[in-house]
Amino acid sequence: MDSERFIQGKKKLDQMSGNAVETMIGNLDGIAPDLARYTIEFPYGEILVRPGLDTRSRQIATVAALTALGNAPVQLKAHIDMALNVGVTRQEVTEIIIQMAVYAGFPAALNGMAVAKEVFSERDRDGRN
Amino acid sequence: MDSERFIQGKKKLDQMSGNAVETMIGNLDGIAPDLARYTIEFPYGEILVRPGLDTRSRQIATVAALTALGNAPVQLKAHIDMALNVGVTRQEVTEIIIQMAVYAGFPAALNGMAVAKEVFSERDRDGRN
Amino acid sequence: MDSERFIQGKKKLDQMSGNAVETMIGNLDGIAPDLARYTIEFPYGEILVRPGLDTRSRQIATVAALTALGNAPVQLKAHIDMALNVGVTRQEVTEIIIQMAVYAGFPAALNGMAVAKEVFSERDRDGRN
Amino acid sequence: MDSERFIQGKKKLDQMSGNAVETMIGNLDGIAPDLARYTIEFPYGEILVRPGLDTRSRQIATVAALTALGNAPVQLKAHIDMALNVGVTRQEVTEIIIQMAVYAGFPAALNGMAVAKEVFSERDRDGRN
Amino acid sequence: MDSERFIQGKKKLDQMSGNAVETMIGNLDGIAPDLARYTIEFPYGEILVRPGLDTRSRQIATVAALTALGNAPVQLKAHIDMALNVGVTRQEVTEIIIQMAVYAGFPAALNGMAVAKEVFSERDRDGRN
Amino acid sequence: MDSERFIQGKKKLDQMSGNAVETMIGNLDGIAPDLARYTIEFPYGEILVRPGLDTRSRQIATVAALTALGNAPVQLKAHIDMALNVGVTRQEVTEIIIQMAVYAGFPAALNGMAVAKEVFSERDRDGRN
Repeated sequence: MDSERFIQGKKKLDQMSGNAVETMIGNLDGIAPDLARYTIEFPYGEILVRPGLDTRSRQIATVAALTALGNAPVQLKAHIDMALNVGVTRQEVTEIIIQMAVYAGFPAALNGMAVAKEVFSERDRDGRN
Repeated sequence: MDSERFIQGKKKLDQMSGNAVETMIGNLDGIAPDLARYTIEFPYGEILVRPGLDTRSRQIATVAALTALGNAPVQLKAHIDMALNVGVTRQEVTEIIIQMAVYAGFPAALNGMAVAKEVFSERDRDGRN
Repeated sequence: MDSERFIQGKKKLDQMSGNAVETMIGNLDGIAPDLARYTIEFPYGEILVRPGLDTRSRQIATVAALTALGNAPVQLKAHIDMALNVGVTRQEVTEIIIQMAVYAGFPAALNGMAVAKEVFSERDRDGRN
Repeated sequence: MDSERFIQGKKKLDQMSGNAVETMIGNLDGIAPDLARYTIEFPYGEILVRPGLDTRSRQIATVAALTALGNAPVQLKAHIDMALNVGVTRQEVTEIIIQMAVYAGFPAALNGMAVAKEVFSERDRDGRN
Repeated sequence: MDSERFIQGKKKLDQMSGNAVETMIGNLDGIAPDLARYTIEFPYGEILVRPGLDTRSRQIATVAALTALGNAPVQLKAHIDMALNVGVTRQEVTEIIIQMAVYAGFPAALNGMAVAKEVFSERDRDGRN
Repeated sequence: MDSERFIQGKKKLDQMSGNAVETMIGNLDGIAPDLARYTIEFPYGEILVRPGLDTRSRQIATVAALTALGNAPVQLKAHIDMALNVGVTRQEVTEIIIQMAVYAGFPAALNGMAVAKEVFSERDRDGRN
């Protein structure tokens, strides 16, 4: 039986990204289904649903952090996509990434922008904003 | 003669933080005054003044990134303080930092929160929000 | 009312470290009590209690990771202490840290060892192994 | 003439992984053969052969550290494979990686698990545990 | 109209690398042209042209830093190429990278060397030193 | 009996820094003397003595890398001091550190400069260059 947090996390993640729940569960199926469950329960079911910071600002924070860390391009891609889904504009995404040149160096910003470019192209192809 | 970017950066940094310009120039005086100049010209005079992302969102991005990187507590402290100065609330700061547990681990969040606690105490002492 | 995970996490953390629960709650009280709760619920109440890897091996993993990351000395200190509490020997702790010279460089190993030295001294003073 | 440490390191690495020595020497041949030699002499010939921590625990430490650092997927892959060769179970590998969500964030754990998945598939294909 | 720093940065980057300016501008065209401009103005137009450290030493510093950070292989590749263009020898490049095993661990050095190997092959193919 | 590498490493480190060998052995005495031995044997006895890159360039590489990594201020301090001992000028040290703003962000450069400032003050006090 799914925990309340799982249900809440699934709902939140569904709102933020079309088929992310299924993809994550699919990827980890047969190897670590519990990691999929935790990823839905804790980040989405407990943290991102907290009041006190709007979803748009939360995605700004995540895109900034993943660009600065520079070692999780797959997750950065997913979070740029979710940022656009929850109302962050493309221009705002590029501004966040440019700003990371200051705090994490130009390579981090350039690599982050390459990821954003991929997201924007895919969305162009699909006719999404 | 100061460059236009320096003048613009100094103005921006003055708006965000009382005496940060003087402190930075003082700290680097006699060792690397040009690094102080660049720090004022490029981050504050070129990046943070860009349109396309509001100052509040920019500080959310910076607090998130510095918490996640976890190796610049002095700068994180300064940027939490500036975030509060430009309209990010204390609750929002703590939410950003809690969220970093997801993307950079609990130690990063706990250490970020220790820095926030220091900032909040100092502001309490000075009767600031 | 405390969640089951909180109760389980508190029990686990109590077994691993004398007064860590109270310290963590105390540190975050008045600033981010929810971060204290999450830290007890998720790492201790969900992850470290999982079957499939013994507690001793889990602490070996954590001491290795925090030494390698090199930016969380407070947490490394706490986890070396917990490692010793759950049956990792001092010699094993020093071996893990020496090994990190290979994977994260000599500075990471030397800084990790400085933290271990502190833990060992405090335990000597208290007459603990 | 090979140093004693090289001979010892080669023997250790041969025990841990079928043809790793030849692969490493082949990869660095004509560019930096000394780096291959050092990698065999120091990590394998001096550190991993030390008494005081069993080989299984040493691989737990390495898999944890490389998952947490998140910027060396090739080496993580090799070390997960070696971990399985020296008696760490697949379940234990997945537990170590899940645990890294706590100390280095969910992206690090998810990316580490993707590497583990590759290793497990390749071993399935070869009929290995 | 291009700023003086842009002109100076373009000139510097042209000297260091054949078509890097056009590539960078091309890559960021239509997504974040200002990031291309900043990358030319600040690193190349302000920092790398500073007196006080020769260009060869500057490239040694950059190759070392990017190898140690380990999360920007694209930029490392470009900077190894530029290092060779400004008089750092292949042997010196391999020495810098081997040395990073000490300060950032063997995985960082091995991954850096794989990038160097690529650069050397491409230059061999093109008949360059 | 000391290995040849130890003798060579001790000699190299003695040339680079007055009493670093004794300090390192003293710090690790009674906790991990082998880590002191490895640190002398491998970095100083094997790597820094290699031909193919002069000592001055090697220190430029190390100061750059440790500034960029940003999590080993104690080692950065020692290596800035050694850089000055082997002929890198104060101006060159500050240039390397300023340059790291480009590759690792302004916080890394500002924190590196704070370490350099300490080294310079201590050397001023002792009447050294």
